[in-house]
Amino acid sequence: MSLPISFLSDFGLTDEFVGVVHGVLARLAPASRVIDITHGIRRGDVRAGALALMRAVQYLPPGVALAVVDPGVGTDRRPIAAETSWGVFVGPDNGLLSPAVAMVGGATRIVTIGNPELVIPSEGATFDGRDRFAPAAALIAGGEATLDDLGGTVDPAGVMPLMLPLPDHREGVLVGEAWWVDHFGNVQTNVAPDDLRSLGLEVGGEVSLTIGTARYTVPWLTSYGEADPGSLLLHVDSYGMIALALRDGRADEWLDVASGTAVSFSLPS
Amino acid sequence: MSLPISFLSDFGLTDEFVGVVHGVLARLAPASRVIDITHGIRRGDVRAGALALMRAVQYLPPGVALAVVDPGVGTDRRPIAAETSWGVFVGPDNGLLSPAVAMVGGATRIVTIGNPELVIPSEGATFDGRDRFAPAAALIAGGEATLDDLGGTVDPAGVMPLMLPLPDHREGVLVGEAWWVDHFGNVQTNVAPDDLRSLGLEVGGEVSLTIGTARYTVPWLTSYGEADPGSLLLHVDSYGMIALALRDGRADEWLDVASGTAVSFSLPS
Amino acid sequence: MSLPISFLSDFGLTDEFVGVVHGVLARLAPASRVIDITHGIRRGDVRAGALALMRAVQYLPPGVALAVVDPGVGTDRRPIAAETSWGVFVGPDNGLLSPAVAMVGGATRIVTIGNPELVIPSEGATFDGRDRFAPAAALIAGGEATLDDLGGTVDPAGVMPLMLPLPDHREGVLVGEAWWVDHFGNVQTNVAPDDLRSLGLEVGGEVSLTIGTARYTVPWLTSYGEADPGSLLLHVDSYGMIALALRDGRADEWLDVASGTAVSFSLPS
Repeated sequence: MSLPISFLSDFGLTDEFVGVVHGVLARLAPASRVIDITHGIRRGDVRAGALALMRAVQYLPPGVALAVVDPGVGTDRRPIAAETSWGVFVGPDNGLLSPAVAMVGGATRIVTIGNPELVIPSEGATFDGRDRFAPAAALIAGGEATLDDLGGTVDPAGVMPLMLPLPDHREGVLVGEAWWVDHFGNVQTNVAPDDLRSLGLEVGGEVSLTIGTARYTVPWLTSYGEADPGSLLLHVDSYGMIALALRDGRADEWLDVASGTAVSFSLPS
Repeated sequence: MSLPISFLSDFGLTDEFVGVVHGVLARLAPASRVIDITHGIRRGDVRAGALALMRAVQYLPPGVALAVVDPGVGTDRRPIAAETSWGVFVGPDNGLLSPAVAMVGGATRIVTIGNPELVIPSEGATFDGRDRFAPAAALIAGGEATLDDLGGTVDPAGVMPLMLPLPDHREGVLVGEAWWVDHFGNVQTNVAPDDLRSLGLEVGGEVSLTIGTARYTVPWLTSYGEADPGSLLLHVDSYGMIALALRDGRADEWLDVASGTAVSFSLPS
Repeated sequence: MSLPISFLSDFGLTDEFVGVVHGVLARLAPASRVIDITHGIRRGDVRAGALALMRAVQYLPPGVALAVVDPGVGTDRRPIAAETSWGVFVGPDNGLLSPAVAMVGGATRIVTIGNPELVIPSEGATFDGRDRFAPAAALIAGGEATLDDLGGTVDPAGVMPLMLPLPDHREGVLVGEAWWVDHFGNVQTNVAPDDLRSLGLEVGGEVSLTIGTARYTVPWLTSYGEADPGSLLLHVDSYGMIALALRDGRADEWLDVASGTAVSFSLPS
């Protein structure tokens, strides 16, 4: 029985990096299906990779997740594999895996990927995605190795968490932030519907938004299609978070918002 | 028996959207092969998506086509599945599927995808590509559902066509337009070889082209390789349409042409 | 038994070209796994495609390699298939396949792909990637055709080599060049570690670099992680070649280097 492997990275698609990792996976787990989650994570942006993996995991077939956004490659950050009820997550111990692992209920066990016999030798620097993480993912997926074979058990308390900013309540104002701008210009925030409800806001009403020095009054709608063409709206997006959208346009450009921009919510005055 | 699924969208490859749809397909149709036609259709450009699907379909393995270019998501445009001699097309009723369906001989039956039991529940707005179209495509491909299970039959006459501009004959001049500029800068027009022949033009001869206020005399050649390096040519492209090319260069930049630009053809004076 | 097919091109992912080739492969070799090496080779850049294929091949599962970077499509350059100990390489005879074929020990036999029965007919110009190379690759991978079926044997001496610049030794100075800048801004050169050792340079020491009129003294380190954050280093990369890197940044931008830029190495004075 071969498990599917879901693969996320910041490798981009211009070089042959993704193809080479697929080659290693195909050699070591010839019967495993491989799903590319995305390879378009901004270079070294561990937070963006961690959020994408967290959003995706509930839709992926249980199996192995191989995630490589690894600005610390070549330093002493640890390579790890985390066993969960969903399957096994393989990647660097830099926070990348943590939100997805938490999303599926946490790790039952974590090991380092230290066994030198399972690493593809390289003449020079190690390309860990290809030489260490891909073989570990493939051998687990194909049933050729267990976590015991990969390396020693790690104390979960010592694994790097990903610090995700929580929205901040300040006297009737909720200060959140944009944490994802998608391909269509939709802006997902770190604010949940209940956070807004705690301010007395509700679906069907209006919300006052402050971004930098600009202020907007925007309807909170159930669906995108309820907004007038060309107008801003706030809605609960397909992941259950509060998002800003512009019907038939890009909300990020209209609002001059990028990942990390502070967005404040309050009752319209 | 699991049918292959061919998938086209405007999701881009930067986010995890395409990967998540692959995840849904792998969960519901684990034995189906998935082919990515392209996910690089310009955001919301239904016409470009429809033309790409139409060009591709004859080369795709019969099975299921999942196409999502859906600027009306969240409005009342219908989700549909169209049964044809090639297989089943799944997507929004906005014209996206129509040229490809016509290309393979038309639909024998069309249904709405309305059965709520086959839609993945989402906390907020529905991401139809993931929650509605992907499950429908996967269940059909895997033989787990029939068109009857998806929803009620739709009158084909009520399905949105895609309006494709036809070239216009005006006293010895054929006014066509560019409808696709490819990655290499080749410009496919909406003009067929017979349209030019009706003007008295022929392969091996020269053609007068008018684009905006500029006028060019260009040879109509059988093959790209017959043109002198760096020179313009007109030829029948690999889809059987008249196209403008620049040997060893980009015709679109040289001619300042984009999708939609008017291009007129006539006999050289 | 169906062999895997590894596919590299300069088609980009914006159009449906890659998807259509996958369609042809799926129709003719339904049981073959297809690996996309990359489709992001710069348009018509045969050298970049050849180097990427050469770097990738040792990691790909033995089978068929389909490579299409073909600025001479439609001219009389030959379509070829080369049999090697790794498997069969299919593509244009323009140097694209040569370094990878050499990397796996050379071709035992080369044929032209001339059999018209194996070419998909097209109304106009032939799109060789789709109509000629993909069918040949698929039929070989699926065991439906042998090299004999494709066409006549070609003299290997007549096959186009790829001219790769060798570093040039000039009185204590080694003049090399950048031949690949990757997605992360790392600069791979055409210089091997032994070339530097022949100048008296060694790991742990410093190297004098000259790029244009600029001169740098850079440490030659074992691993990326040994460099101070924000500083330049020289190391043996994961393919065994000398590369320039900038810890936590892009070496190409810092040094103003692109593929083809001359880079000279010498002992620090």
